[in-house]
Amino acid sequence: MSVYLVGAGPGDPELLTLRASRLLARADVVVHDRLVSEDVLALANLSAVRYDVGKVPGLAHSQQRINDLLVALAQDHDCVVRLKGGDPFVFGRGAEEAEVLIAHGIDVEVVPGVTSAFAAPLLAGIPVTHRGLSHGVTVVTGSSVAGSHVDFSRLANADLTLVVLMGVQRRSAIAAELIEGGLAPTTPVAVLEWVSTSRERCVRCTLDELGDTSVQSPAVLVIGAVAGLDVRSVESFASHWALA
Amino acid sequence: MSVYLVGAGPGDPELLTLRASRLLARADVVVHDRLVSEDVLALANLSAVRYDVGKVPGLAHSQQRINDLLVALAQDHDCVVRLKGGDPFVFGRGAEEAEVLIAHGIDVEVVPGVTSAFAAPLLAGIPVTHRGLSHGVTVVTGSSVAGSHVDFSRLANADLTLVVLMGVQRRSAIAAELIEGGLAPTTPVAVLEWVSTSRERCVRCTLDELGDTSVQSPAVLVIGAVAGLDVRSVESFASHWALA
Repeated sequence: MSVYLVGAGPGDPELLTLRASRLLARADVVVHDRLVSEDVLALANLSAVRYDVGKVPGLAHSQQRINDLLVALAQDHDCVVRLKGGDPFVFGRGAEEAEVLIAHGIDVEVVPGVTSAFAAPLLAGIPVTHRGLSHGVTVVTGSSVAGSHVDFSRLANADLTLVVLMGVQRRSAIAAELIEGGLAPTTPVAVLEWVSTSRERCVRCTLDELGDTSVQSPAVLVIGAVAGLDVRSVESFASHWALA
Repeated sequence: MSVYLVGAGPGDPELLTLRASRLLARADVVVHDRLVSEDVLALANLSAVRYDVGKVPGLAHSQQRINDLLVALAQDHDCVVRLKGGDPFVFGRGAEEAEVLIAHGIDVEVVPGVTSAFAAPLLAGIPVTHRGLSHGVTVVTGSSVAGSHVDFSRLANADLTLVVLMGVQRRSAIAAELIEGGLAPTTPVAVLEWVSTSRERCVRCTLDELGDTSVQSPAVLVIGAVAGLDVRSVESFASHWALA
């Protein structure tokens, strides 16, 4: 009885790790989130039982119920794969699940994944770090955690790229707080919907336009000078070197 | 003639993506950094010519020479794989290489990888985000870029985890600046050497002890409340819940 907490990457099954694909191929049970794509699930053993714990009619499963389900499944099966979008320890609540399982004496292996926080910009031609434009990157969530929000005014730092996951709904407030904290209203923003899937879409605007820009969840917000780049286009290349 | 800028992940070949392993298997040429492990390189096509551009006696290849080499190789070969430790767009200078190649009319595909910035802590039992302890994570480099250093006093934020790559040499100065910026001297730190390889080692201390703690490059520094956790141990679990 082992539970494998596995990162599924940003959506494209080609971006799973070798370890993740091997574990899926021998899974007895796969417990997955809403954001794990059908294409990824198709890599699972055909006889594996699947539990979608992100899409219960009316209400998402509570974390407590997911923990209980994992403990119960681990007692009946040799190989339980708990599959999470992106990386299990980057806003995945994977650590909470690992702690509960280990406290129940269940073997746990955590398999890192390609995080959407970095893969989404990369696939849109945006490097999160870039000489002369960004010397680092901060990743936060835009949704509330236990009722409290991140104070974005404290995160205003023109030297860093800011990546916001689950930030579409609160994008107006996030932009206002960042501007209040000192970021220029003209700071470039890229909103990356459904990256690495067929529904992929990239919307570009400036920070002061973000609230009025029509975008849909799930999306990754990239805020900072690099969000104006697209390394795939020669035009962007030229304008970057003019900038730097 | 295509160049694939591919993330090799943190070291363990099992943490390569499916896409990366497929590209390595059909590469004519592999151009790799110093930190890409032999185990990863062993996945390359046996007939692929290898260029190690990180380990020239006396002097590392300059970025300009690497760019020129990639352009020249792309003109002679169908499948050139440029392999970088971690993710190519997270301090990998991958974007600079992509821009140069595209400006020369060469097709480029960028393949994201599992970044060491997040995989290193994960594999040591440290979640970079965790309810009640950390609501986000900042990743920066500790080495100088074009002669200038990151101002760490501005990055002191007890609500976020700070991950520093290439920071071993300047660790005393980094700790001093963070404390000056307001981080508690007792803030937990984990230093993760050679993560996911057989030489892996994890050293824990507090921020004020970091300068006097004996550690070796390459290592990932994790600074913040989560650096005191190890989700693999029940003791850590108990102490976390006491904390939170």
